[in-house]
Amino acid sequence: MQIGFIGLGNLGTPIAENILEQHNQLFVFNRTAAKAQPLVNKGAVLCATVKELAQQCDVIFTMVSDDAALNHITKSEDGLAANMKEGAIHISMSTILPATAIYLDSLHHVHRNIYVAAPVMGRPEAARAKKLNFLVSGKPVTVETITPLLTAAGAAGVWNIGTATEAANVAKLCSNFLIIAAIEAMAEGINLAQKSGIDATAWMNMITSTLFASPIYKNYGNILLQQAYEPAAFSLKLGLKDVNLINEQAAEKNTEMPLGGVLQQQLQECVNKGFGEHDWTAIALALK
Amino acid sequence: MQIGFIGLGNLGTPIAENILEQHNQLFVFNRTAAKAQPLVNKGAVLCATVKELAQQCDVIFTMVSDDAALNHITKSEDGLAANMKEGAIHISMSTILPATAIYLDSLHHVHRNIYVAAPVMGRPEAARAKKLNFLVSGKPVTVETITPLLTAAGAAGVWNIGTATEAANVAKLCSNFLIIAAIEAMAEGINLAQKSGIDATAWMNMITSTLFASPIYKNYGNILLQQAYEPAAFSLKLGLKDVNLINEQAAEKNTEMPLGGVLQQQLQECVNKGFGEHDWTAIALALK
Amino acid sequence: MQIGFIGLGNLGTPIAENILEQHNQLFVFNRTAAKAQPLVNKGAVLCATVKELAQQCDVIFTMVSDDAALNHITKSEDGLAANMKEGAIHISMSTILPATAIYLDSLHHVHRNIYVAAPVMGRPEAARAKKLNFLVSGKPVTVETITPLLTAAGAAGVWNIGTATEAANVAKLCSNFLIIAAIEAMAEGINLAQKSGIDATAWMNMITSTLFASPIYKNYGNILLQQAYEPAAFSLKLGLKDVNLINEQAAEKNTEMPLGGVLQQQLQECVNKGFGEHDWTAIALALK
Amino acid sequence: MQIGFIGLGNLGTPIAENILEQHNQLFVFNRTAAKAQPLVNKGAVLCATVKELAQQCDVIFTMVSDDAALNHITKSEDGLAANMKEGAIHISMSTILPATAIYLDSLHHVHRNIYVAAPVMGRPEAARAKKLNFLVSGKPVTVETITPLLTAAGAAGVWNIGTATEAANVAKLCSNFLIIAAIEAMAEGINLAQKSGIDATAWMNMITSTLFASPIYKNYGNILLQQAYEPAAFSLKLGLKDVNLINEQAAEKNTEMPLGGVLQQQLQECVNKGFGEHDWTAIALALK
Repeated sequence: MQIGFIGLGNLGTPIAENILEQHNQLFVFNRTAAKAQPLVNKGAVLCATVKELAQQCDVIFTMVSDDAALNHITKSEDGLAANMKEGAIHISMSTILPATAIYLDSLHHVHRNIYVAAPVMGRPEAARAKKLNFLVSGKPVTVETITPLLTAAGAAGVWNIGTATEAANVAKLCSNFLIIAAIEAMAEGINLAQKSGIDATAWMNMITSTLFASPIYKNYGNILLQQAYEPAAFSLKLGLKDVNLINEQAAEKNTEMPLGGVLQQQLQECVNKGFGEHDWTAIALALK
Repeated sequence: MQIGFIGLGNLGTPIAENILEQHNQLFVFNRTAAKAQPLVNKGAVLCATVKELAQQCDVIFTMVSDDAALNHITKSEDGLAANMKEGAIHISMSTILPATAIYLDSLHHVHRNIYVAAPVMGRPEAARAKKLNFLVSGKPVTVETITPLLTAAGAAGVWNIGTATEAANVAKLCSNFLIIAAIEAMAEGINLAQKSGIDATAWMNMITSTLFASPIYKNYGNILLQQAYEPAAFSLKLGLKDVNLINEQAAEKNTEMPLGGVLQQQLQECVNKGFGEHDWTAIALALK
Repeated sequence: MQIGFIGLGNLGTPIAENILEQHNQLFVFNRTAAKAQPLVNKGAVLCATVKELAQQCDVIFTMVSDDAALNHITKSEDGLAANMKEGAIHISMSTILPATAIYLDSLHHVHRNIYVAAPVMGRPEAARAKKLNFLVSGKPVTVETITPLLTAAGAAGVWNIGTATEAANVAKLCSNFLIIAAIEAMAEGINLAQKSGIDATAWMNMITSTLFASPIYKNYGNILLQQAYEPAAFSLKLGLKDVNLINEQAAEKNTEMPLGGVLQQQLQECVNKGFGEHDWTAIALALK
Repeated sequence: MQIGFIGLGNLGTPIAENILEQHNQLFVFNRTAAKAQPLVNKGAVLCATVKELAQQCDVIFTMVSDDAALNHITKSEDGLAANMKEGAIHISMSTILPATAIYLDSLHHVHRNIYVAAPVMGRPEAARAKKLNFLVSGKPVTVETITPLLTAAGAAGVWNIGTATEAANVAKLCSNFLIIAAIEAMAEGINLAQKSGIDATAWMNMITSTLFASPIYKNYGNILLQQAYEPAAFSLKLGLKDVNLINEQAAEKNTEMPLGGVLQQQLQECVNKGFGEHDWTAIALALK
């Protein structure tokens, strides 16, 4: 089984390294070829085009930045759907609109190959520590097939969300929504505590040792208290992109999402203030 | 040392029972005397007035519903401040405005007795299981004095927030803010998941097993998924009262609190729809 | 000069009637042909397809419901751009995204015919009274050419917003934003007045006779006070569509729009409550 | 009939001048006595204390900054209620909470003198031009008595809102709410227009010549387009105070007020940025 990997960014690179380590062989492609060099140094085979990679692989992971990029590499004449082998599998790890997943699934179906949504939760250091969580959905046989591959890619957990193509994408958007809502709530709480003259660290220590004793509150709480917004593990600009997707999905499904509107505004304000490349915890800077 | 207890509601009663169990003697007062009967049956001494209780006790716990009620029992001519023994301690467990705590502290000071803020976190079942958390603040010697009493009252943890009188009250408001913000975020996320046609339980299982593996997300997430809004452990109406306090504190301190405004609106909408006596997780009903 | 008209809805019909009255001849097309009958009875020529209409006319007005509908009739093989005469003009009166206008303009340019944005402000009764206002933008020569046609269509005013293709579309979105924001503000004010026990009519009479003595506040204020939400002159569902466009434009231009988020939520709540076909003043029902 | 006037700020001074001009005699008091000098120069009699003024007058106008100031001058031992003549009238022009009006009315009642709410709408230049609007409410006989006095004070219109003591105060809050909501909507619309690259002045010219042809939109629209935020005719800080009163009234009456929350946040952000003394149109700076 030949494996391919497209999209060697902050998170894509350590995931691809995990796979290469397990499988000894990996075909890679990146729009900016220079970013592929570290993997090539470790033995990966660099492809010049998406088409070249598509024609050689049985399973292809993609980790690209947004719906437009994924659409581009999948649906163009020289793209994945038209050039993958019959029965080959495209594992898409990006955070995208559910409607995009449905569309790409149908496109692959026409070309007799397979699309499967496997969005990933975790920062680059979690990838290196093989503590990622993958959300997956789709036909049971496909999910079963790819599960060991996701484990190779660095999964501590593989979570099956359902049989609908886009179910994992919905779950990913909802998860990111919970995270950014929690960050904003902590930012507002810490700000109120400090403006009220109390030691926010003592309070956060209590709350993250008891009711909110979970990784999100502990880790992001620390970043907020230390105002350690750089370097970004996940950029505020990408956070805004995801919140825009969440609100788009909500509008599409005629769903009220009051916090979604507020989060969009706060992130937008931070982007406009020039904090787009900070970590998304820098949403706190909209309050200053 | 004689101990008194004022305010035998849902949460006050099990706390008073814990104290009675440890100390064998307890003076109690409740505006509606009938609610004191279960404690009297277990050996507590019923006082006819706040004044009668105040004159006999060295330490007095109060657990009343809001700032107005606490003001009333403390500052009136027949109230606590004017009638407590010199050096006696008033331990106030209510969620109130920091400014109220500062005011009452000064009032007690004039009468040469002591006010200390010790707001409590936990539902009635946590009180019965002695798994409460108390936030305390004030003079170190006072905090030291009352800590064993809080343990007797059912504390699993006593968290010292600082030496300012009102610090624990600020921390309590910030904590309740984090809780109701987390509930609203889950409610919106579950709603979007369901409107998008996916199994929200599968998603919530993933998220509360990983990034959000904490009591608040697990417990409240379950209530939301099961729509088990009755009976209320903490009523939506009281939740609205607390959010109004939070927003009042934010305005007082010239602090932006964008989520505070949204939470206020959602809770108000639910009260207007007739859900004031439901559990505050029923904030989800504003989305339906 | 032959004139065509596509889109015979609530507002399109009286505008088309105005044109027919001035020009004696008018080619018409509507997806549901039955809706064209009143105009045919008055002498309009019914075309079976968009293509048939496109091939015969020198100027074509379109008044269709949204971006998708306008895209469809313009860009398909049998659509306007590919089938209009060289140099013919497509006057688009719909409220659409500025980006759609830019795209369609370039498409017409390729086919050597002309696109011009002329979104219209006014309800059907204003069309019948020839009191419409048109916003226009684009090349001065085109704007000059179409101005008398807009007057024939029922314009009391033709407002030139600038030379950029999409300028009039931006202005239309901003105008609708001001209107729905004013409606929501009045709805909230009237509601607060009534909940406070005062005569909201006395207050609104004062305010619309003085500081807010303008058509929007007088007319919509009356509808709100009388709760006369049916029949709709402009449906709430279309209002939500427009607010979604406004928010999309804001996101596209990295612009904060805090009221935009609130208006979207209130309208969405009303659609979910089943008021989508009411007049958009029914946004007030989100407060009840 | 002797007339008194307390509160010689930006707006109080020209109103007092109008009265002095009509009545030749006027007793004045101001916390900072120096601010009374211009009126004294024109013949007003300066009183050293509120009590001194109270004892000499049959009608007393007050124009003080907030609920606390009005409470102070009215209810203290040396204040208005306790020292006014029997049957004398206190005309309160401040924007205050309806509950404060009810309380002060009852206090005056105890002392057998009369409180009447007559909040004023208009900027200092409107006072000088005698184009103010007064909202009044209360017992018909009282309203009838004071109407000519309000005309003397500079009223172009006196609007009777009802017989309840606080009705005019409710109407005033609702009016200020409409104004600041309109300002925010224009600010957001102008910002979106400009970020979209169009000439916002051309758009605003159209909209304020047609649908929004009213003083508020014309005047404040101009200030926004010119960013002429200084000097303040009505300071942003006072605007925030009023919005806080509106939200407090809404909470008190269990009323949803979604825009109220957003307006509070935007004004608070501007105060925090240091724009509290700018005109309240500077709410636009929260978007920059």
